[in-house]
Amino acid sequence: MRTVAIVGVGLVGASFGLAIREAGFAGEIIGVSSSDALSAARKLGAISGSATLDEACRRADLIYLSQPVDRILSTISRLGPLAAAGTLVTDAGSTKLTIVRKAAECLRHTEFIGGHPMAGKEKSGAEEADANLFRGRPYILTPSSGPPSPHAASFRGLLECIGANIVELDAQEHDRVVAFTSHLPQLVSTALASTLAHQKNNHLERIFGPGLLDMTRLALSSEALWASILAENREAALRALDAFEEQLHRARQAVATNNLADLFSSGESFASTIRKLTR
Amino acid sequence: MRTVAIVGVGLVGASFGLAIREAGFAGEIIGVSSSDALSAARKLGAISGSATLDEACRRADLIYLSQPVDRILSTISRLGPLAAAGTLVTDAGSTKLTIVRKAAECLRHTEFIGGHPMAGKEKSGAEEADANLFRGRPYILTPSSGPPSPHAASFRGLLECIGANIVELDAQEHDRVVAFTSHLPQLVSTALASTLAHQKNNHLERIFGPGLLDMTRLALSSEALWASILAENREAALRALDAFEEQLHRARQAVATNNLADLFSSGESFASTIRKLTR
Repeated sequence: MRTVAIVGVGLVGASFGLAIREAGFAGEIIGVSSSDALSAARKLGAISGSATLDEACRRADLIYLSQPVDRILSTISRLGPLAAAGTLVTDAGSTKLTIVRKAAECLRHTEFIGGHPMAGKEKSGAEEADANLFRGRPYILTPSSGPPSPHAASFRGLLECIGANIVELDAQEHDRVVAFTSHLPQLVSTALASTLAHQKNNHLERIFGPGLLDMTRLALSSEALWASILAENREAALRALDAFEEQLHRARQAVATNNLADLFSSGESFASTIRKLTR
Repeated sequence: MRTVAIVGVGLVGASFGLAIREAGFAGEIIGVSSSDALSAARKLGAISGSATLDEACRRADLIYLSQPVDRILSTISRLGPLAAAGTLVTDAGSTKLTIVRKAAECLRHTEFIGGHPMAGKEKSGAEEADANLFRGRPYILTPSSGPPSPHAASFRGLLECIGANIVELDAQEHDRVVAFTSHLPQLVSTALASTLAHQKNNHLERIFGPGLLDMTRLALSSEALWASILAENREAALRALDAFEEQLHRARQAVATNNLADLFSSGESFASTIRKLTR
């Protein structure tokens, strides 16, 4: 693999460029993005050049789509007639089913592997790029649309070099899982911060411990990004909200009857388990 | 102020001892606690000796109650006949109204100032003590039960030396505020972790980003501690849950109609504000 094109050089795209460069990738890294993003990414060394999508398609072995979900969908439509047969296309979108379906429809002669790095920050933009963003974090890959190819093997090699933990998962199952582990925490954090915002009591802004900072960090995330994610995975997100409402009702009963043991025990058990697994 | 007695040498009590020692307090710091806690605290240098509650009352200028809320209430009952007239009693409990009322009832001849350091960790115990636990964090004080005394002035001086930001607040208003900024985030974190625990899908334990770790950290907190807090501030906690349920309903509507802008904007605004104020 000699040339990588990164389409959408924001936090994830620029971090990917920076990470593969630091891991020793010596080829060309072409950015396709807004001029502001390109200049920030070039300054950091996350890309070595820039191009239009057409030109990038002609030159790249790997096309890495790291735009918001709605933009990834429209880029895939445009790639259909542009991408060469020997190119591997992948994406870093937060939902997978509609993207994989769009790729199956539009990229009939080009290999596609859906991807989702479970890494991020509440801040966005190439300026926030971090070569270690993917390190130790799960990186979901959906099954390849074609037979095993050399480019797919190289791409997986790159992901391993940048410290990502590759997990293969079917697109539909991915979307069900992230509705619980990503969309739900986001909605809960935003709803919590919004609850406090609506109290119109200035003391709430001063009198809190470190827990409230943790619980409201996700509320700083970009609304535009989340609108596009939730539009593509609405049903699963609503089902996760249903399940949460059920536990919230249980929490209310637990407080009302002063019987917290079961609720706290199941919460503590999950919270401990995911910490053991990330160590 | 020459002698401080810390009743309940857990995370907060041992951190208070350690913090005042490191800030230069040269007097005696007596621990009143279980023998395990006393030996851990002594090893860290958080206390210089130990005593029974009776003996501590005879010797201490300041009695610092850092037990769980239910234990603070029963200790205050015991202090009535024990505490000398010139002693200052304060506590570090997470609710204030029932404690301040109990003190008014039982400590007729002893000055009492209710306190609540808005600092903590999800872990407990003297072993977790940290001299910087209070630094930069709000430390609520309820109005003193008596006229301004030299011990009260010394105690405030100690709190300033250990970096706490003193905020004076009436006990009832304190309890209303922390129901939103502390009890609600705790219940939400536990309900979220419990929601994921109930999905019986092993992928949920592996496929997540750093946001889920933040959102479930509080779920590691001690159930016993929270049972005692929520028992004393149940009505305010239930009202906070009501307000949150309203915003959660709004979040559901926002997802269903793909119109997140208002919800995210109020959430983002609160989350940004509290970060500006803590910088």
